[in-house]
Amino acid sequence: MHDLIVIGAGPGGLDAAMEAAEAGLKTALVEKADLGGTCLNWGCIPTKIMLGATSAIEELAGQTKMKVASGSIDVDFAALQRRKEKLVAGTRKATALRLKTLGVDVIYGTAHVTAPGKIEVTGDTPTTLEYDKLVIASGSRPTFFPGLEPDNDAVIDSNGFLALESMPESLIVVGAGFIGIEMAQIAHRLGTKIHMVDALDRVAAAEDPEVSKVLGSMFKRWKWNMRLGVRVQSVTTRNGKACLRLDSGDEIEADKALVAVGRGPVTDGMNLEALGITIERSGIKINEYLEAAPNVYAIGDVNGIIQLAHAASHQAHYVVSRLSGKTEAAYVSGPVPSIIYGSPEVMHVGKSVHEVIQSGQPCEVSTLQLAANPMAQAHAATQGVVKVIWSDGKVAGVTAVGHDVSRLTTPSTMIVQEGWAPEDAYETIFPHPSLDEALMGALKAERKTVSAD
Amino acid sequence: MHDLIVIGAGPGGLDAAMEAAEAGLKTALVEKADLGGTCLNWGCIPTKIMLGATSAIEELAGQTKMKVASGSIDVDFAALQRRKEKLVAGTRKATALRLKTLGVDVIYGTAHVTAPGKIEVTGDTPTTLEYDKLVIASGSRPTFFPGLEPDNDAVIDSNGFLALESMPESLIVVGAGFIGIEMAQIAHRLGTKIHMVDALDRVAAAEDPEVSKVLGSMFKRWKWNMRLGVRVQSVTTRNGKACLRLDSGDEIEADKALVAVGRGPVTDGMNLEALGITIERSGIKINEYLEAAPNVYAIGDVNGIIQLAHAASHQAHYVVSRLSGKTEAAYVSGPVPSIIYGSPEVMHVGKSVHEVIQSGQPCEVSTLQLAANPMAQAHAATQGVVKVIWSDGKVAGVTAVGHDVSRLTTPSTMIVQEGWAPEDAYETIFPHPSLDEALMGALKAERKTVSAD
Repeated sequence: MHDLIVIGAGPGGLDAAMEAAEAGLKTALVEKADLGGTCLNWGCIPTKIMLGATSAIEELAGQTKMKVASGSIDVDFAALQRRKEKLVAGTRKATALRLKTLGVDVIYGTAHVTAPGKIEVTGDTPTTLEYDKLVIASGSRPTFFPGLEPDNDAVIDSNGFLALESMPESLIVVGAGFIGIEMAQIAHRLGTKIHMVDALDRVAAAEDPEVSKVLGSMFKRWKWNMRLGVRVQSVTTRNGKACLRLDSGDEIEADKALVAVGRGPVTDGMNLEALGITIERSGIKINEYLEAAPNVYAIGDVNGIIQLAHAASHQAHYVVSRLSGKTEAAYVSGPVPSIIYGSPEVMHVGKSVHEVIQSGQPCEVSTLQLAANPMAQAHAATQGVVKVIWSDGKVAGVTAVGHDVSRLTTPSTMIVQEGWAPEDAYETIFPHPSLDEALMGALKAERKTVSAD
Repeated sequence: MHDLIVIGAGPGGLDAAMEAAEAGLKTALVEKADLGGTCLNWGCIPTKIMLGATSAIEELAGQTKMKVASGSIDVDFAALQRRKEKLVAGTRKATALRLKTLGVDVIYGTAHVTAPGKIEVTGDTPTTLEYDKLVIASGSRPTFFPGLEPDNDAVIDSNGFLALESMPESLIVVGAGFIGIEMAQIAHRLGTKIHMVDALDRVAAAEDPEVSKVLGSMFKRWKWNMRLGVRVQSVTTRNGKACLRLDSGDEIEADKALVAVGRGPVTDGMNLEALGITIERSGIKINEYLEAAPNVYAIGDVNGIIQLAHAASHQAHYVVSRLSGKTEAAYVSGPVPSIIYGSPEVMHVGKSVHEVIQSGQPCEVSTLQLAANPMAQAHAATQGVVKVIWSDGKVAGVTAVGHDVSRLTTPSTMIVQEGWAPEDAYETIFPHPSLDEALMGALKAERKTVSAD
């Protein structure tokens, strides 16, 4: 009998299991694949390793354009893959060690609910476990529209991209969201010709339209073949190549096609219905305490709130606080920041202009272009903007696009959380020179009322 | 008659003049050299432009060491100098335009007090000006110990370094403080052999000893000839080369020697004595309102509080708030952050371990090594540490060394300013993956009492 069983060892499940064990709960963690989940193994971390390993290419390109530097950089993609595997395996190993030290029982296999309070783990050695409380943190997986399913030959998903043995000469990227954008940049840096296709008429449609505009103009400058506002009929492998057919009848051919049109919750095969859990399209339905059923919580991607690792970790911390009697309050998330890495980077936290206006509040924005920022100038990457979104005289949100703007994320998160008024920007001393000063500048810039975004 | 005359157009003086003009004061700004002062023209900004332009070299070196990448980067130093001049000139021009728009009278020349309320500006067209209030923001200049004065032949100061027409093959750097360290890194990246000499037994002696240790080990790995804890007798040009003689009699020869042993206030030639101002070795003596004499303020490097541009700007904002009747309170500075840029970077803000212990308070520290951080791993730069200094259960200071740690500066400044308690680290959602998580990890790490640093 375990006090707590956690299903899924991604960021949410791991944090829940570790914090519960630290709090003295007898805890088991069930994982059907690898410790670390999508984030560590097929998502955020491998992508960042590939972006990091190729960042010198983009830095050099900027200085070359300014005629300050010249040279060439060759990335050995097979070696990069090995290094990625090594780093990820190292983190998995450290995680396993930490779980062991904490006394968490880690069981590999697929969890299957047999009755409330009871699960069976199918796998090499089937095990039956009993729990007092259950946390479902089973995550998400890529989803596809009909006709866009990868065949894992020339048509691949994000997992397939991260497992490539060599970079293709040309790549169709279906989906101009953050996954498509980050992966396309990796391929672009390694010399791949990019064709980017999306049904929406702008890239990064979850971001501020001004951010999309800056990104879009950069992608064009990089000579990406941008096909926005088009509908895809099919993507298939034909003679070993990826062939994308648009509704218009146009076809695009490339060595590979990456389909990155979204991710959906993993809820199948666990017999969650036996617990009386409601599963909606976006994920497991939860109440204000993140409960999916009596004694059962759902956290992370699977509950459909937001698909971000740090949100899952925050939810995990809440659930353990609740289970260990430290809080009885409903779950309240602070502002959840979001980053697209690469060159440029994108960040946002808090409300968008659209959300403030939708909520019926007057909305003001103050912006600063990066052009005059000395750090952006130093890195020959001055295109970009920082935008502060104000509601009721307080900072409601911040978004930015440009060189290294991910570094504005944590201060912006704190500023949104604290709801800074305009004068607060004068109280904190920002370092000079720094890109951070662009955030300070945007906070101090003239606020203009906007009525639509 | 001007409401306000500002002497010195560095960051403090510029901000004072601009904010005063915005507040409706008739303002004049006197500058003997270039708008932007040391920071823009011979300090922070040119250094960052050179570090930025060469950053790909260090990024590539990291990946090359991991056998992931290979290649070569050539920086055209003359082109970099031209670009630096162009960027700096552009900022000067934008600054001049902004001053003009605001109606600030800019007068080039050396200010000389003739009587309280009256100054003469000597220069191409001598001018006499009258003021109601005076702000002295005349900044600092390099200072030297006897025997270390640059001859501007083979022995140069930081101004001389930034004006070099080509990088020497070898460079002696006298002074392992932040100026010496940043400039030595620029030269190192461009292939220069570095000899670093300091009387103290560790580099970056203003930083935490653990930070010095990490920096020192990197410099050794880069094969810098480190001569610490030695006394320099002289540095002279001999047969066109720089020759440094130690007290021990040892000699070091190199193509150039950069002497960066400190900066001191610029107070001469202005006849400040006529105002009853007291000038100490560290700078102009001021009271709690930053007043040096009735109706006379001193801000920035010249008052000796701290030699940092952003501190000067903060003081400028206070003085203008006071002059325009917005505050009558004494000057209170929030925590002033400090950064050494390069690879690695160094940051600190708030109190050091030493300062907490000196104040008689119990001191705790919590630390996190960067080794497991995915962003540090991605950039093949995992050596480094984040250290949080606690006093009385609150965060009193933060320091860090390692890849990209400058991005921890602004959040750390806010955290120190707010005096976070341990539980506060769970309230704010840090983005994943990010280097910022190393700060979160250090905040959440076990706190250990330290009795000496």
